[in-house]
Amino acid sequence: MTQIITPKILKGTRDFLPKDMAKRQYVMEKIRSTFIRFGYDTIETPVIEYAETLLGKYGDEGSKLVYQFKDNGGRQIALRYDQTVPFARLVAANYQALPMPFKRYQISRVWRADRPAKGRYREFYQCDIDIIGTESLLADAEIAKVIFSVFKTLGFTDFTIKFNSRRLMNRILESVGVPASRTADVIRLIDKLDKIGKKSVARELECILSKEIVQKLLKIITASGANREKIASLKKEDSQEIREFFKLCLDFGISEKNLLFDLSLARGLDYYTGVSYEVVLNDVAIGSVAGGGRYGDLCGLFCEKKFSGAGVAFGFDRIVFAMEELGLLSEIPLSSQVLVTYFDESVLPNSLAIFAELQEFGFNAEIYPEAISLSKQFKYADKKEIPFVVICGSDEIQKEAVTIKSMKTGKQKTVPRNQLTEYLKGLSF
Amino acid sequence: MTQIITPKILKGTRDFLPKDMAKRQYVMEKIRSTFIRFGYDTIETPVIEYAETLLGKYGDEGSKLVYQFKDNGGRQIALRYDQTVPFARLVAANYQALPMPFKRYQISRVWRADRPAKGRYREFYQCDIDIIGTESLLADAEIAKVIFSVFKTLGFTDFTIKFNSRRLMNRILESVGVPASRTADVIRLIDKLDKIGKKSVARELECILSKEIVQKLLKIITASGANREKIASLKKEDSQEIREFFKLCLDFGISEKNLLFDLSLARGLDYYTGVSYEVVLNDVAIGSVAGGGRYGDLCGLFCEKKFSGAGVAFGFDRIVFAMEELGLLSEIPLSSQVLVTYFDESVLPNSLAIFAELQEFGFNAEIYPEAISLSKQFKYADKKEIPFVVICGSDEIQKEAVTIKSMKTGKQKTVPRNQLTEYLKGLSF
Repeated sequence: MTQIITPKILKGTRDFLPKDMAKRQYVMEKIRSTFIRFGYDTIETPVIEYAETLLGKYGDEGSKLVYQFKDNGGRQIALRYDQTVPFARLVAANYQALPMPFKRYQISRVWRADRPAKGRYREFYQCDIDIIGTESLLADAEIAKVIFSVFKTLGFTDFTIKFNSRRLMNRILESVGVPASRTADVIRLIDKLDKIGKKSVARELECILSKEIVQKLLKIITASGANREKIASLKKEDSQEIREFFKLCLDFGISEKNLLFDLSLARGLDYYTGVSYEVVLNDVAIGSVAGGGRYGDLCGLFCEKKFSGAGVAFGFDRIVFAMEELGLLSEIPLSSQVLVTYFDESVLPNSLAIFAELQEFGFNAEIYPEAISLSKQFKYADKKEIPFVVICGSDEIQKEAVTIKSMKTGKQKTVPRNQLTEYLKGLSF
Repeated sequence: MTQIITPKILKGTRDFLPKDMAKRQYVMEKIRSTFIRFGYDTIETPVIEYAETLLGKYGDEGSKLVYQFKDNGGRQIALRYDQTVPFARLVAANYQALPMPFKRYQISRVWRADRPAKGRYREFYQCDIDIIGTESLLADAEIAKVIFSVFKTLGFTDFTIKFNSRRLMNRILESVGVPASRTADVIRLIDKLDKIGKKSVARELECILSKEIVQKLLKIITASGANREKIASLKKEDSQEIREFFKLCLDFGISEKNLLFDLSLARGLDYYTGVSYEVVLNDVAIGSVAGGGRYGDLCGLFCEKKFSGAGVAFGFDRIVFAMEELGLLSEIPLSSQVLVTYFDESVLPNSLAIFAELQEFGFNAEIYPEAISLSKQFKYADKKEIPFVVICGSDEIQKEAVTIKSMKTGKQKTVPRNQLTEYLKGLSF
């Protein structure tokens, strides 16, 4: 006899059973249909790539987290770490065939050889859009509008799209007297404001800057007030980009209450060059659920042509988690809508005819594959959350009738056989 | 300056650009919705698994084709080779939580460290359904009905579902006098009938069997005639299973012209135990496009409980290829339906309002992100195959009108601004 292998999976990877999948597919489809509504088409890149394509693109820390191995032919292979580098590679190889500006979405899995922890997986989904080949601020505002639409469509109400500009931040640092050599360090510390608070950040900044500069800087970047006021308080030449971006967001129909100009937002250290954004949910403590911004040159690693663009990545697993918390996923149905029962071989052709008719009229239906007790067939329907069960034994056949049982209420109703589909159409699933 | 890396991908893997993806998603969604219509729910398993879960399940040849590597923690990891073994592992680990019989579909990628060739990839999709936890022949016939529905739904007309029974074949081999020790070899040779022809198979069979046995055997398994006749020609006790299966297929509404009882069908050497099937397209020479059957014990490698079931795998890439050949994918649209043009900043708020309105009324719309020449915006629409372009310059604004250009016909029409969405709804996309 073959030895039995324990059916276990790697930490940081997951099996999803039908009920989880129904919820995840619902969320994914909402996100996808929003992307499509804005004219984003999808592309697909391989999961396995030459290692040299991916390595060295994510900093020292990131490169360690790229899964890689040698294949049978001695080639060094890596598993996709994100969707951005493969996208850049695809654009560099195909830009002449692509419409420009090029708008694409991608929803697929990526892999990180990370230490798994709560909410941190080795295998997880990313949902990205990018528009590249244009420097227009309208593209930045469009991405903000897609973000707004995604969260609205998913049913979130209390979310904030924080925005800032890397260009602006660089100017502010310069204007208060931060030496250019310290810019990266200072931004890295500013990025900690949310996590460790203003006092701790000030203390750390004072290790590399004078107390005076730190105070000036923190005063500007942590100023409170309405978006308009904050934007107006900046010198005109510094604020033009953010002022225009904000106006375009409003023209696009983004509610002002969901927008927050946050000068302390310091996303992505070296990547972004213009406007950037990050989304937080105000009623679920889970960190940011989406983030992105403008980059100056996406494909520079793979070709000499420069492609500026803007993009955003949605944190799919965090979004699903938050929706569960807020009760937004409690009513997602599984596939099956009607179970046709049957009792013995003599009534089977009749049950099959009912089944065929239900399918033809657009119901997701199934027929129980064995003639066993009705109670067992009901149990099956319960476990699969099938809302209605059709019963048609020899009694019903004789009377040219069928009985429909609602699994939710337990109530049964017998209707003439030829009214079955009409009757089911009137029910709520 | 960073050195530029040539943007290349591994042989046997593929990038898919938007137009390919539109077709592939169309086909996938048709297959998926058919699975759902029969009450199959989806599950998801990891792409990376412990190597011991996958190795040794695909024969010596198969094991060599499993991509495997050691991760940072020294664990031996493998990439999913098919969807069946991970499914068996999942069922073994979760059967108490699952409804039984359990019906699931899975559409996702698998990896094989194979030598790439025309139509043979290292990374490709499988589309599987299985129903396990029942030995009822109704389940086998349901799988055949799903096969029938998938190909019908995709628009194929001239396809044949060949069917046979492994149980029946074993009995026939026994009855003509094939020694049990030779069964596997004989079946392997019968499997070559399609490829090398009757004469060559006879010659090879005669190396291990007497001429008399070979002639008896080939006479039975290559008999021609209608399904009913062939079934009736078998001794009654041998044909009961196939007779019932055939009757159930007809009761399920499968057209008889798409069914072919083929005693020479010898799918899968050791795996199948009962009815098996294989689908060929009669108008595209591409080999089988789907195959499957009844297995006696799916999860035996992972648990002591026995799960018999039936399943089928659809060859997604072959199906897409065949549909292209038959012209069934020539009309698949990309996402965008309407492009809103704009000319300068003064008309932008107006263009944004049009864009917002189009989206609200359910159109997939986009606004060109830069105020450039109309001819360039038209070129963009052409390249993205956007069927309609909305033009609204200062003239139109003054007249409270908009102009709609059909990119297919080149014709333009100016309508009152407040009739735009009504007008677009009346067009065919």
